[in-house]
Amino acid sequence: MKKNINIAIIGLGNIGSYLYRYLKKNKISLTKKNNTIPNILYVSAKNRNIKRSITIPKKMWLKNYIDSTTNKDIDVIIELIGGAEGPAKKLVFAALRNGKHVVTANKALIAKYGDQLAKIAEKNNVNLEFEAAVCGGVPIVRSVKESLIANTITKIYGIFNGTSNYILSCMEKDDLSFNDALLKAQKLGYAETNPLSDLNGEDVSSKLKILSSLSFNTFINNNVYVEGINNIDQIDIKNANKLGYKIKLLGISEINNKKLIQRVHPCLVKNTSYIGGINGVLNAVIVNGDPVGENIIQGEGAGPGATTSAIVSDICSILRGNIKYPFSISSNERMKIKSSSISSHIFSSYLRLDVSDKPGVLSDITKILSKNNVSIKRLIQNPFKSKKYSSIIIVTHKVKNAGLMSSISQLSRKKFLIATPKLIRIEF
Amino acid sequence: MKKNINIAIIGLGNIGSYLYRYLKKNKISLTKKNNTIPNILYVSAKNRNIKRSITIPKKMWLKNYIDSTTNKDIDVIIELIGGAEGPAKKLVFAALRNGKHVVTANKALIAKYGDQLAKIAEKNNVNLEFEAAVCGGVPIVRSVKESLIANTITKIYGIFNGTSNYILSCMEKDDLSFNDALLKAQKLGYAETNPLSDLNGEDVSSKLKILSSLSFNTFINNNVYVEGINNIDQIDIKNANKLGYKIKLLGISEINNKKLIQRVHPCLVKNTSYIGGINGVLNAVIVNGDPVGENIIQGEGAGPGATTSAIVSDICSILRGNIKYPFSISSNERMKIKSSSISSHIFSSYLRLDVSDKPGVLSDITKILSKNNVSIKRLIQNPFKSKKYSSIIIVTHKVKNAGLMSSISQLSRKKFLIATPKLIRIEF
Repeated sequence: MKKNINIAIIGLGNIGSYLYRYLKKNKISLTKKNNTIPNILYVSAKNRNIKRSITIPKKMWLKNYIDSTTNKDIDVIIELIGGAEGPAKKLVFAALRNGKHVVTANKALIAKYGDQLAKIAEKNNVNLEFEAAVCGGVPIVRSVKESLIANTITKIYGIFNGTSNYILSCMEKDDLSFNDALLKAQKLGYAETNPLSDLNGEDVSSKLKILSSLSFNTFINNNVYVEGINNIDQIDIKNANKLGYKIKLLGISEINNKKLIQRVHPCLVKNTSYIGGINGVLNAVIVNGDPVGENIIQGEGAGPGATTSAIVSDICSILRGNIKYPFSISSNERMKIKSSSISSHIFSSYLRLDVSDKPGVLSDITKILSKNNVSIKRLIQNPFKSKKYSSIIIVTHKVKNAGLMSSISQLSRKKFLIATPKLIRIEF
Repeated sequence: MKKNINIAIIGLGNIGSYLYRYLKKNKISLTKKNNTIPNILYVSAKNRNIKRSITIPKKMWLKNYIDSTTNKDIDVIIELIGGAEGPAKKLVFAALRNGKHVVTANKALIAKYGDQLAKIAEKNNVNLEFEAAVCGGVPIVRSVKESLIANTITKIYGIFNGTSNYILSCMEKDDLSFNDALLKAQKLGYAETNPLSDLNGEDVSSKLKILSSLSFNTFINNNVYVEGINNIDQIDIKNANKLGYKIKLLGISEINNKKLIQRVHPCLVKNTSYIGGINGVLNAVIVNGDPVGENIIQGEGAGPGATTSAIVSDICSILRGNIKYPFSISSNERMKIKSSSISSHIFSSYLRLDVSDKPGVLSDITKILSKNNVSIKRLIQNPFKSKKYSSIIIVTHKVKNAGLMSSISQLSRKKFLIATPKLIRIEF
């Protein structure tokens, strides 16, 4: 006689509904694979009467979502509410405290409260699983925790946000402005109605914090330099292309001199590089580890299918009875790590300065750069059609971020500048 | 007090020695990650007195490698002997029968005896783990068994052999003949002294059989069409380049009309495709699954570091006490699958015919192709320098493999052919 594991799905949006249907349809095959029966016992959602693609028997509805945490029949709670605070937080804390296994797709919650939640899970000997919180179809959490467990990881980076990658690809390929590309993404369901956290880098920042702590066996560190794609103009993408680059929003975390540097920002990457070839809604995560070398996983970053694949891998791990530390090692063994800011980090970079076409402008610009120890590798001046203004594109040699930032700030004050200077760091 | 798990390493070549050193050096961190102490208790090797990079205490040497299977203190046996028969076979069968967990890097053994071995492992409730048998630094076995467990896989393919990929890359990039590229690979340690199974496709075939059975939940099926890279000439690589392609040795397994087709052969792939960008000793495995979509893992295919990373992930899975079915589901649930041969499969393909430059030759060739329903998409005739001979390059439309093969066989008999016709299938 096979054992039943009883599941409650809390949150029935796109993903919750897809998951519900998937688990019903694949009950037999999942039972075969795990020798345990995954049984959806209860569901809950903010709005019970909304029109859904699934029909749920009346008896399966919980009166109150929080009852799932005290119901003795429930073994596993799937949290698909979202958000770092409010009901999601209340649910997951209560569930773990009451000895329920938790599977969540909530990157904001894990990035903010993951350390506290892990301690409670470990104390109560239950699983806290969050594969779906980081790059849905890219099983990077399980990969770092299990497949690459042998490795000392020194760097983990990649494209972690399908929405912004789609928009950047679209601006390049379909020759669209940022706003038009965003509209297209929303039309196709690749961007939410409120896409703020996707575009301002916050979504990538949450994922990066989680990946850093898994990779380096450290507590979550909130020191992340974050810049989104909101300021990328189409002209920058065209300029980058002419220089042999593409623009990608990367999340990058690495250990340098025993200090952690976490950063999220648009980067110029060589168009022949691997990462330059990751287009549309794809995500890719690259891990540098010893002894494995460089390891890459690529897949769809979001969407109900990819996210369900991740959630189900977590459920199956629970069905098989594999209790694991949520962050790979015990909270007693996780370390605090010192972090360093981006300011002493060295970058080569792309600068675009739109200026009035007057004598002395170039001399003023080069003087400011030189004062800040920014040396120029390449300079192209393109007159505007009106010929009154010019766009000056500069590629710098490698120089400290602080020097770049003070150059930008000094240049910004110059009257000959007709727009805020644009700085994009060159990564590969 | 933490539990000890006692390990015997059988086989101390490059990989065994690297693993020994790794396990000694990383004992503390592995204990932290798994809450269990990995302890090397015994080793054995064919030649005890050979010069090694490691010093092994006398007391650790087993008198006879097979003693490891009966020694009560040993929990896990790591088989690094190699080969489908002889001592490796004897060791692994005996180990599983005696209730020892087994970790092996031996693709030939698993491809040949995996089904039998899995049944014994399941009966005795021990692990049989073989991540290192398939594409060392690409953790595809664990990925299919765990990370992608939710998916119905319809196709799995990729570059599974670092040696042949290195040689093909070298022929292209360094403008070397096949033999010179092979010599270079051997010099750099990327090809063995006897590289036969790497070059004739047998190595890829073993890996493909294992991946098919994991992906499709079927018993191992030996019906594989196998062609290696031994017949690839530099001129074919140059011709492919001119047509916008690269030549790669792919392993491809897919389900078509409920039948399995497994094939290993050189392919022309678009040079802008993902797979066309995988160069040198890299391996890449691509999985098409529902609901995850397309999933890719890329990494170093071989070498002691990558292989050790794989072996250690297997050891850790045992340290954590995760008993699993070796092939993802129970042997009672695995199915026999019907397979179909490549002959009815449809390909577009590249043909090179080196011919005497006489009147009527082209007409003869096109007549034969037409009789076999092979229709021509593109034809280029290049005269040899001597002008007595020509090379005719044909790209065909999609056509049944059988038609291609009978064309080749009929063309071969023609006197105007001065060399065996060359056929390379176009995949992407």
